[in-house]
Amino acid sequence: MAQGMPGGTGAGSLLSILRDGRARTRAELVQLTGLSRSAVSQRIDALLHQRLILPAEDTTPSGGRPATAFSFNREARVVLAADLGVTHARIAASDLGGAVLAERAADLPIDRGPEPTLSWVLDTFRELLAECGHPASDVCGVGVGLPGPVDHESGTAVNPPIMPGWDGFPVPGWLGERLGVPVLVDNDVNIMALGEHWAVHPEVEHLIFVKAGTGIGCGIIAGRRLHRGARGAAGDIGHIRIPTIDQVQCRCGYIGCLEAVAGGAALVARLRDAGLDVADGRDVVRLTKEGNPLAIRLVRQGGREVGSALASIVNFFNPTMIVIGGDLVEAGDHLLAGVREMVYGRSLPLATQSLSIRASELGDRAGVTGAAVMVIERILDPKTVDRSVST
Amino acid sequence: MAQGMPGGTGAGSLLSILRDGRARTRAELVQLTGLSRSAVSQRIDALLHQRLILPAEDTTPSGGRPATAFSFNREARVVLAADLGVTHARIAASDLGGAVLAERAADLPIDRGPEPTLSWVLDTFRELLAECGHPASDVCGVGVGLPGPVDHESGTAVNPPIMPGWDGFPVPGWLGERLGVPVLVDNDVNIMALGEHWAVHPEVEHLIFVKAGTGIGCGIIAGRRLHRGARGAAGDIGHIRIPTIDQVQCRCGYIGCLEAVAGGAALVARLRDAGLDVADGRDVVRLTKEGNPLAIRLVRQGGREVGSALASIVNFFNPTMIVIGGDLVEAGDHLLAGVREMVYGRSLPLATQSLSIRASELGDRAGVTGAAVMVIERILDPKTVDRSVST
Repeated sequence: MAQGMPGGTGAGSLLSILRDGRARTRAELVQLTGLSRSAVSQRIDALLHQRLILPAEDTTPSGGRPATAFSFNREARVVLAADLGVTHARIAASDLGGAVLAERAADLPIDRGPEPTLSWVLDTFRELLAECGHPASDVCGVGVGLPGPVDHESGTAVNPPIMPGWDGFPVPGWLGERLGVPVLVDNDVNIMALGEHWAVHPEVEHLIFVKAGTGIGCGIIAGRRLHRGARGAAGDIGHIRIPTIDQVQCRCGYIGCLEAVAGGAALVARLRDAGLDVADGRDVVRLTKEGNPLAIRLVRQGGREVGSALASIVNFFNPTMIVIGGDLVEAGDHLLAGVREMVYGRSLPLATQSLSIRASELGDRAGVTGAAVMVIERILDPKTVDRSVST
Repeated sequence: MAQGMPGGTGAGSLLSILRDGRARTRAELVQLTGLSRSAVSQRIDALLHQRLILPAEDTTPSGGRPATAFSFNREARVVLAADLGVTHARIAASDLGGAVLAERAADLPIDRGPEPTLSWVLDTFRELLAECGHPASDVCGVGVGLPGPVDHESGTAVNPPIMPGWDGFPVPGWLGERLGVPVLVDNDVNIMALGEHWAVHPEVEHLIFVKAGTGIGCGIIAGRRLHRGARGAAGDIGHIRIPTIDQVQCRCGYIGCLEAVAGGAALVARLRDAGLDVADGRDVVRLTKEGNPLAIRLVRQGGREVGSALASIVNFFNPTMIVIGGDLVEAGDHLLAGVREMVYGRSLPLATQSLSIRASELGDRAGVTGAAVMVIERILDPKTVDRSVST
């Protein structure tokens, strides 16, 4: 199979053309690829053999002659996805087009450690497969999001601050051994950015997805691709220093980090100090929705602190769009109003000229969607397809 | 010509393969592209006709038979490049491999306005062409850098604060009319980043080039490509708010911008307040080199302010490398020491694990190199080549 040409001329590139869902005739494929008729036929045969394409129904001639048109078969494989948060998990099975076939949400504390957590994930994957009627042999890959820094290449967590036992645990090895397919791992904010961009804003060139929950972090789409940075640490805005009057100690050891000032845990602590009965970010959201003035004021001020950090980032990165997600965004417009106030007030006019700041549309499904997309993009990458059809 | 395949199968893709300078035989090109022998021959003929490739000397057979191997002809065209600063300009002619054939540096105040400035540039382009013995018909494109925000698509300056008369002036139209070739324009920091990355650090994935001169700005390479942002405003870090004790008024209208605190103009003003005779950043550099304690202290503190803004950016972007350029970096290690102190002290450990912070190696040639590279990458882009050989 040809490998030298940028973009490739193999079966994978032909499949890329068909991924938009439109059926194409052999003649169209010859014209679109510049390949010879026989080369196109050879690649079609390989993709048919893998069931990645199907003869388009309305063009299949009768009498046993070969089909003339083909389309992408998004149901050829199943992708399994898990978004593991600090206390909750969401698991899904989807097709190669990203459509969810079955899903499950549950309380699942990540601090139970990797083996108990992943055993539960594995059992749930099997239940979901049974539910949507696919055999395990249809699974082509698994995507996992973890709530901490992840080395995407090895798929392991790197010194995660709130995940005892996970540091360096071989997630891809453990799950891969049991499922026999590739396992991709990334941190939760990266997959949320990937999911929201892919499902809601695919046309947006540069997007920042901010997760405002217990902690604060962001995922970055630059030039429509996920930007992970040199060590996979990109987007860790929770530890940007914010000039505040209170010298708040952060769990990272420093003073005045954004997360220590404006994160969900910080808001919970301050509401408790005021004598209110709050356990986590969901209680903060509840109080805000009930109209508690202190909760509203704290959420809005938290938005301002996030916005103050983002104002510098907007000058630097000039994003097309900022999407705010995470538990705290459920508190309604108070958080967004605070973010907008500071970003539009403090960034350069040219950088905010066409900037849109909005709430996540996928909400708590952003992560699991992105975990599936991460796998789909890898599996359907022309180079991966070329390798899989030539073996 | 085939257009549908990602990456293309046209003459441009074939030229991309040959740009590394190695000669390849027809058989190798067939193998590398996956194209038929006749398709490869057709593309070779088109590129030979344009002189973009040449028969490799050691493989040209005697007796009039067609050549068997071909290599990229970097001398086929000339690129003209101009890096226009606030007070200085550097002009160069280079080949398609980026090698400088002739160059000139001169004092040229940008506030003389676009027509006088560009007339001088045009005259200098003609002198350089005569110097290197190329006719005007060899010129394939012009690259221009301007010291202010530029809309790269239209090639015009957008509300530049220190360039009277330039706002919206059609630089590509004015020069293009007189030279008959495409003219690309970008801001000075973007082309400096492009030049330094291309010439010195092509293997670096994510690079931030900071220009510390009269003003402060940066150019961003993300995934080995220039990141311009949604409105071409990316990299404008000079107006990030720095928490300082002095409430310094910035020329942008706000208080406490990085540039107002740590830019060359700010240092000049403070040295003057101390009774020293300084006109511009070059005097600050001179004083620092002479060992003036106040100048050294101010440059080092300026480095700390720049580093404090960069610490947040490092958490967000996780660059592989930060390169510091601009006039002030000539002051030696004082500026870099201040930057390093704050970035390594304030960024997250994972984000600085393999981060390198260094001075520009191209120095005042970074901009003109980048202006040429911007044109070369456009001219040799497979799609551009496909269009040029098919007309």
